[in-house]
Amino acid sequence: MSEIRTLALACRDAGPLLAALDTPSKRALLHGMADALHHRVREVLAANERDMQEARNKGLQGAMLDRLRLDEARIAGIAQAVREVAALPDPVGMVTRRETLANGIVVERVRIPLGVVAMIYEARPNVTADAAALCLMAGNAVMLRGGSEAIHSNRAIAAALHEALRAHGLPEAAVTLVEDLRRETMLALLQLSDIIDLAIPRGGEGLIRFVTEHARVPVIKHYKGVCHLYVDRSADLAVALNLLVDGKTSRPGVCNALETLLVHRDVASVFLPRAAAALIERGVVLCGDEATRALVPEARLATEDDYAAEFLDLVIAISVVDSVEQAIAHIRRYGSDHTEVIATNDHSAAQRFVQSLRSAVVMVNASSRFSDGGQLGLGAEIGISTTRLHAYGPMGAESLTIERFVVRGEGQVRHPESRFT
Amino acid sequence: MSEIRTLALACRDAGPLLAALDTPSKRALLHGMADALHHRVREVLAANERDMQEARNKGLQGAMLDRLRLDEARIAGIAQAVREVAALPDPVGMVTRRETLANGIVVERVRIPLGVVAMIYEARPNVTADAAALCLMAGNAVMLRGGSEAIHSNRAIAAALHEALRAHGLPEAAVTLVEDLRRETMLALLQLSDIIDLAIPRGGEGLIRFVTEHARVPVIKHYKGVCHLYVDRSADLAVALNLLVDGKTSRPGVCNALETLLVHRDVASVFLPRAAAALIERGVVLCGDEATRALVPEARLATEDDYAAEFLDLVIAISVVDSVEQAIAHIRRYGSDHTEVIATNDHSAAQRFVQSLRSAVVMVNASSRFSDGGQLGLGAEIGISTTRLHAYGPMGAESLTIERFVVRGEGQVRHPESRFT
Repeated sequence: MSEIRTLALACRDAGPLLAALDTPSKRALLHGMADALHHRVREVLAANERDMQEARNKGLQGAMLDRLRLDEARIAGIAQAVREVAALPDPVGMVTRRETLANGIVVERVRIPLGVVAMIYEARPNVTADAAALCLMAGNAVMLRGGSEAIHSNRAIAAALHEALRAHGLPEAAVTLVEDLRRETMLALLQLSDIIDLAIPRGGEGLIRFVTEHARVPVIKHYKGVCHLYVDRSADLAVALNLLVDGKTSRPGVCNALETLLVHRDVASVFLPRAAAALIERGVVLCGDEATRALVPEARLATEDDYAAEFLDLVIAISVVDSVEQAIAHIRRYGSDHTEVIATNDHSAAQRFVQSLRSAVVMVNASSRFSDGGQLGLGAEIGISTTRLHAYGPMGAESLTIERFVVRGEGQVRHPESRFT
Repeated sequence: MSEIRTLALACRDAGPLLAALDTPSKRALLHGMADALHHRVREVLAANERDMQEARNKGLQGAMLDRLRLDEARIAGIAQAVREVAALPDPVGMVTRRETLANGIVVERVRIPLGVVAMIYEARPNVTADAAALCLMAGNAVMLRGGSEAIHSNRAIAAALHEALRAHGLPEAAVTLVEDLRRETMLALLQLSDIIDLAIPRGGEGLIRFVTEHARVPVIKHYKGVCHLYVDRSADLAVALNLLVDGKTSRPGVCNALETLLVHRDVASVFLPRAAAALIERGVVLCGDEATRALVPEARLATEDDYAAEFLDLVIAISVVDSVEQAIAHIRRYGSDHTEVIATNDHSAAQRFVQSLRSAVVMVNASSRFSDGGQLGLGAEIGISTTRLHAYGPMGAESLTIERFVVRGEGQVRHPESRFT
């Protein structure tokens, strides 16, 4: 038996123990984890310094290096996030529906854990604690396969989590860190369809493609966000400008940042010069179609690739459209089903936009930057699903459970004629 | 471009038209389909006779032949089932939650169609109409890949469905019958992860394994049902006997029939001889462990394979257990996560049974035969999912949709400091 299979089986065996924990026990466990992260801050920082040193030696810099870096404040933030997960409503055991049928049987839908979740991610060491906390709160065991850049940090964080598991009489395997980072081992993990109930890849396009193409276990992708703002002819242009500036510039490196601006022709000559000035003032590079460039000479000509791009940077693609229908067609063609925004005061245009697009999050007069589990009331998120199955959009603790049927009767049978009397 | 890809793209292009249909239009379409099945009954019967002739030539007999066979009554039943789907609540557009957050944005969860569903099935031609009706009611386009035995019947049924689609101004591709039944074509279909949102295999183990092992599209399995009845020491034995006889004998060939009986040692000597007599009287063959055979000499010795078997026939495996925990351990070891039943008057035993098992359906004092979408109040089912993701257990029209986020604001942004004023 392969080593990864042995690890996964031990992880699965922890599942029933986790599924049986009551809410106070899970909360105590997560607070224990946060405490352990606090008092092991030196070890975690030392481990992170090793990762940082190796990363610098490899020539990593800028955003990559920053995502990897931990300091006391960031570790406190990670511990705080674990405490916030502990404060969430416990989804396990939630009765979502209850119905008494004509024959007297009572049919309930009750949430149970998924079982074993495999989290496959890159760079950010905080995911190690975040994902573990959310999975545990939902009663799941978790396999964590992080990136090689963060292996020392991930090990030190996992050691803190394991300390709390032991203190609560639970097996360390409930949170299993995969330390063998060879590609063939990840491949083997993704074949364990009798053990792993769900794989969640979070990271760059390459990682997500690899997982999707090779997995025999169910996968929920957290893919890219090519998010659009469409400024309708009836938009309040001051509102539209705020949505644009917030969406593009408040944090350009995240998946809910705006990448493309679509403007109705009737308001383009008023809106686009003002929008361009505001964006340029904040360091944004513009590209657009001919109609855009006629109004904004600073914009370079946009290519097909620009409209499909997730820039994750201070760059925006712009197009002038003739109607809400044309905006919808553009988004259908180039979008990634993540988040789209319409600025409009026309109720029927808003309805057409919402109903014609099948993106995970559609917003009317609100910033794309709200497309986030914390911002939309889920408390925390394990990611933003772009897979239209099980969970779509921001995915919280509840999405790490499944509804099953619990039926209670008093001896009812389907064919009373077969009754033994 | 491969032919199957061309077919799938046309199917997908029908999606937005279906997603946009209002409830009355969908109901009218389904009634049109039922009408078309009625007035094409001759064509369907003639096509079915070709399938039956070829099946007889190939030596098919018994249950296989019966599942393939159509007659006027069965076709009327298929049409009636389509009308029943038309009467279901429309899941599309359902607002499942609505919340106004502190910043004033209104967050709704709204059901939208999945997109394109690929149904992969065997023998029964009724699935062609059933699956199409459920997918359409949920606003989905559907690819139907039936078995070669039923190809003529499936074509004739699809022709009736297409007639109704045309009459309602919709493209025939909305219901695409895959007529190229080569294995490599099914393989190619299962690779179309940019087009197909969900594949649902329904049929024998071989088919389901093939689909699971080769698909790059999401799969929800409708796998076997190794369903258990556990008779607790505190059970009302008359109730237990009714559950046993109904579960095992009312329709042994279906997935919610009982396959294994577990009896608490304290009641075995009273219950098992009565149970054995009732089963034998109805033609059931028994196998069991030594404790069973001491009480029921007619039972042959059960093997490991017997306890893991989905007999789909008048055979039952029996084991005597010492406790509810031992029953739970047996089910965890041999079960298929489909449906389990406990007969008990002990509330705490019932709770332990329900909470310790993660099967899709768990019943207390009710027959396993209720594990069915129609019986549990879903109206109709596309199958019974044994995949613990998205849908688990009987899967109706609602499970062919996904909740997404619709957010409405009045210009709210996440970082007001980035506001352009």
